[in-house]
Amino acid sequence: MTDDKSTQMLTRLHHVNFLVKDLEQAVARYQDILGVVFTQRDELPDRGVKIARTCVGETWIVLVQPVDSQGVAAKHLERHGEGFFLISYQVEDVFAAATQVTAAGVVPVNSQPRQGLDDWQVLDLPADDLFGVSIQLVQSTDQG
Amino acid sequence: MTDDKSTQMLTRLHHVNFLVKDLEQAVARYQDILGVVFTQRDELPDRGVKIARTCVGETWIVLVQPVDSQGVAAKHLERHGEGFFLISYQVEDVFAAATQVTAAGVVPVNSQPRQGLDDWQVLDLPADDLFGVSIQLVQSTDQG
Repeated sequence: MTDDKSTQMLTRLHHVNFLVKDLEQAVARYQDILGVVFTQRDELPDRGVKIARTCVGETWIVLVQPVDSQGVAAKHLERHGEGFFLISYQVEDVFAAATQVTAAGVVPVNSQPRQGLDDWQVLDLPADDLFGVSIQLVQSTDQG
Repeated sequence: MTDDKSTQMLTRLHHVNFLVKDLEQAVARYQDILGVVFTQRDELPDRGVKIARTCVGETWIVLVQPVDSQGVAAKHLERHGEGFFLISYQVEDVFAAATQVTAAGVVPVNSQPRQGLDDWQVLDLPADDLFGVSIQLVQSTDQG
C-alpha cells in the first residue's frame, strides 16, 4: 500500500504479545472462540515467562504468562492487567535500526540487541516515547 | 508456520489500532523515529475519530485520535491513556465468523457487522471475553 516499501525500516509486523494470567485457559479459549491453534510452546527463563504462539498470516500471535513475579512481564501484568503487552516490527538490520532510533532521541531499553526466541535479535524501545506502546524491533530470518 | 492455514478462521492480521491524543504529533514522531510514512488519512464521524494509517508488510498500522468526547475511542483513551486500542483479524466470511463466536458463547458488541474504512465489514468482540484484548473480525478485499 506504500510506494517505498523497499526503503522502509520496518518490513513486517513480526509479532504481537498479549499478557495472560493463565496460559492454558487462554489457549483453550482462543481455540474455542477463534479457531486459533497455538502451534509452538516456549519458555524464556531469563524473561520469566512461558509462551504459546502461532502465525496468523505473516505475524506471530504470542500469548505470554509470567512465571516470575519479579520479571518485566509480571510487573506489567500487575500494573495494567491482562491484555496487550508489546508489538514487534521486523527490520533488516537491528544494529542499524538502533543507530537510527538513537539518532532520533530514543534510548532503547537494552543498549545491545538481546536474544529472543529462535534467532530473533530484539531491541526494546521505551513506551514513554511512543505514545504508550511498547515497541520492539527484531531482526530474524523467519518468514512467518 | 501452521499446518492448516487453509482451515483457519483468521487468515491475516488485518490492522492494529493505537490511540493517540494528537495525531499530527504522533505521525511526525513515527516518521522521525521509525521511518514510518502514513500514506492514508481518514475521518470516521460515526466513530468520532480521525485516522492516519499505513501498511507494514500485510498489516495496516492505524493511529487513531478521538475527536468526539462521547465516542468509544475517546472513552477508551480517557480510561486507559494512549496506547493499544484493538487488533483486527481478517476472516473470509464475517457472518460465518459471527455465528462461530456466538456459538462459543461470545456476544459481539455489534449484532450485525458494521461498515469500517474502505470495504471493511467489522465485527467487534468484547474485551472481557478475550483476556483484556479488544478483538475485531473483519471481512475485506484488500490485501495489505
